[in-house]
Amino acid sequence: MAQFQATASAPVNIACIKYWGKRDTKLILPTNSSLSVTLDQDHLRSTTTSRADPSFEKDRLWLNGKEEDIKDGGRMATCIAEMKRLRKQEVEDKQPNEPQVVSLFFVTYLTLKLTSCPKLSSYHVHIASYNNFPTAAGLASSASGFAALVSSLAQLYALPVSPSTLSLIARQGSGSACRSLYGGFVAWEQGTRPDGQDSLAVQIAPQSHWPDMHALICVVSDDKKGTSSTSGMQRTVETSALLQHRIAHVVPQRMAAISAAIKSRDFDAFAKVTMADSNQFHAVALDTEPPIFYMNDVSRAIIALIVEYNRVSMEKGLGRRAAYTYDAGPNAVIYTLKENVKEIVELVVKYFPQRDGFKDVFGLFGEAGVQGKVVEGFNEAVAKEFEAGAVKGLIHTKIGDGPRALGAEESLLGEDGFPKTLAA
Amino acid sequence: MAQFQATASAPVNIACIKYWGKRDTKLILPTNSSLSVTLDQDHLRSTTTSRADPSFEKDRLWLNGKEEDIKDGGRMATCIAEMKRLRKQEVEDKQPNEPQVVSLFFVTYLTLKLTSCPKLSSYHVHIASYNNFPTAAGLASSASGFAALVSSLAQLYALPVSPSTLSLIARQGSGSACRSLYGGFVAWEQGTRPDGQDSLAVQIAPQSHWPDMHALICVVSDDKKGTSSTSGMQRTVETSALLQHRIAHVVPQRMAAISAAIKSRDFDAFAKVTMADSNQFHAVALDTEPPIFYMNDVSRAIIALIVEYNRVSMEKGLGRRAAYTYDAGPNAVIYTLKENVKEIVELVVKYFPQRDGFKDVFGLFGEAGVQGKVVEGFNEAVAKEFEAGAVKGLIHTKIGDGPRALGAEESLLGEDGFPKTLAA
Repeated sequence: MAQFQATASAPVNIACIKYWGKRDTKLILPTNSSLSVTLDQDHLRSTTTSRADPSFEKDRLWLNGKEEDIKDGGRMATCIAEMKRLRKQEVEDKQPNEPQVVSLFFVTYLTLKLTSCPKLSSYHVHIASYNNFPTAAGLASSASGFAALVSSLAQLYALPVSPSTLSLIARQGSGSACRSLYGGFVAWEQGTRPDGQDSLAVQIAPQSHWPDMHALICVVSDDKKGTSSTSGMQRTVETSALLQHRIAHVVPQRMAAISAAIKSRDFDAFAKVTMADSNQFHAVALDTEPPIFYMNDVSRAIIALIVEYNRVSMEKGLGRRAAYTYDAGPNAVIYTLKENVKEIVELVVKYFPQRDGFKDVFGLFGEAGVQGKVVEGFNEAVAKEFEAGAVKGLIHTKIGDGPRALGAEESLLGEDGFPKTLAA
Repeated sequence: MAQFQATASAPVNIACIKYWGKRDTKLILPTNSSLSVTLDQDHLRSTTTSRADPSFEKDRLWLNGKEEDIKDGGRMATCIAEMKRLRKQEVEDKQPNEPQVVSLFFVTYLTLKLTSCPKLSSYHVHIASYNNFPTAAGLASSASGFAALVSSLAQLYALPVSPSTLSLIARQGSGSACRSLYGGFVAWEQGTRPDGQDSLAVQIAPQSHWPDMHALICVVSDDKKGTSSTSGMQRTVETSALLQHRIAHVVPQRMAAISAAIKSRDFDAFAKVTMADSNQFHAVALDTEPPIFYMNDVSRAIIALIVEYNRVSMEKGLGRRAAYTYDAGPNAVIYTLKENVKEIVELVVKYFPQRDGFKDVFGLFGEAGVQGKVVEGFNEAVAKEFEAGAVKGLIHTKIGDGPRALGAEESLLGEDGFPKTLAA
């Protein structure tokens, strides 16, 4: 008996123009377009194996080895159902209903096609997914997770569709997941159709267009349980007096400005828009009743460092060379070009001593390691030096590619169709 | 020789609808109207003595015993010059230029008038001012300070003008000072005239209208030097994409809503608007390039306490019973009605233990003192308990009256025309 199985990995993406607000909560249609950078799967990824088998009694899913409940009508159920529907519509239904003997040649052909095209859409699936970054890191894993889910099913089902089409389905799992279907710089176009068929991801530029775009993730400790983005954004939609102005008058011009900055590789313009939009997202969160805060004093201090770093850089005529951005949590993601990463790591470590040392995956620092220091002309009084642990960790990564098809050796499911036990 | 001297005190005011942004930085004309509650001078006040004397060689001013430089064209010089101009225009110029002998009765009359109306506008002034609250408390003293300055000069000059007229001059010292010319609830109407003559304070309701309106000021420690409001607000005007929407579409309806809430003594509505406008002021500050933060983690925690306190209250059908508001710093001012002050002090002290104990000026707690506890049904997990000192002090006060004329025994100037040495 043939085994129908596929494994894919998908990347994390971090938005420069933020998604905050839905116009349709079931279909996950946003109130504004957004744009992100896809990060490198060599460092951060979700990996998912999907198998379809007539012996399976129901759809089941394990996340990091633990079975999740696939709720009827829930987001996972919707994505799986939509993928099965596409399989049927785009693959199975395009086969004739009944083999018809037209000629000897045709009989042979149809038989072969039918053999290579079983009715997988009618089988239940077992799905195992694994994130290579700890949940404690506070990085949203739903984007890479749903992108990997959809990608592995697309591979399993041999769907002849574009990543944009898959993004329509990933979007219904988690809005920002749609942007993880491409590498490089990716826009989620909000669309206007009530059925959401034009609310999808498009690639603005591939990774190869600006490969020096690096990212430093500062994982910030937080003792406060934050508001979930799902409930928070709808409270903003319902109560913020400023959000509609942002949607109608600010985001459209920022989408155009940052797309132009990316196309011309203008880091200063990219940074200006990225930071302004992070600020504005947190501003509308604060303009919500009751107000929502995601950044804390550590987040604020990191902003002060980047603002001062850029001030020095602009004074030298070099423009902005770093851009902070914050999602629905206190972690900072700092975009910068490869040539500046060393200075920025030194800067962050100076104010936020690291307990575990900096994991120098790009080999920037050699044996001396990170000292913790500021660039010349930097006003050290813009922030105080924090205790070790305020920034729990630093992850250095860069722009990356879209979902990858992985070989059978990467499978997360064993021969028995259940998750393998993974080494920690 | 007669002594021409007057002493006045003036109150602090804390805005519910925030002033943030000038359309004219010289005349201090705001981009939107604002509204505040005047606090009780029995607790927080600036006191100012002004003396005019032909022997003085220049205008001089001492603040808390230390001489300040009255810069040409600066805000203090403008206020003093404007007050002298009013003295001349409203008092001195209304006397005939030359005594004319028309009848015996008239000669006598004019002589008397001239004796009681010396040309004080031509004399230099010595001014001593004193704030009874420490600068370290982080309370803006410029509002009460300029209001006391203008009030003492108005008294010295025997000006037959309304507080609204005086507010035009105090406004040029410090925008929000204009609101300290009245007690109770005070609006600063933005006005439309380029010369600013309609940008003045009007009383919405006197103190006696809602005497149970109390305020608890939480003085919050901060290790970060904040952005001055003068420079901060203009950066917001120049760079925030949201401020213009706030000015044109949000503030006008909030001014109407809070005025109606005050008139009908509807605390729930008053609280809702007050908190929303505090949030929005900090939202547009954050929407500034680079972003401005005034609240810190302690401020955020106090918000979380008030939000939860109100949630419990609303669940009981009592509506909101507390309203936080934050100016350009981390201190919280909590408005509440007298009957709720005890609960709120207990709540704040539970999370923010006090080093020096609570100064119970209204005698609420008796011998047992403050225990630190929450109301029934309160979710204690909304904030963590902080170390003693995170909230440095609590000041309990209430709504108060406008500037007061004080007797000669309160004079801050000695017989020699120089500041008395004040006991600390």
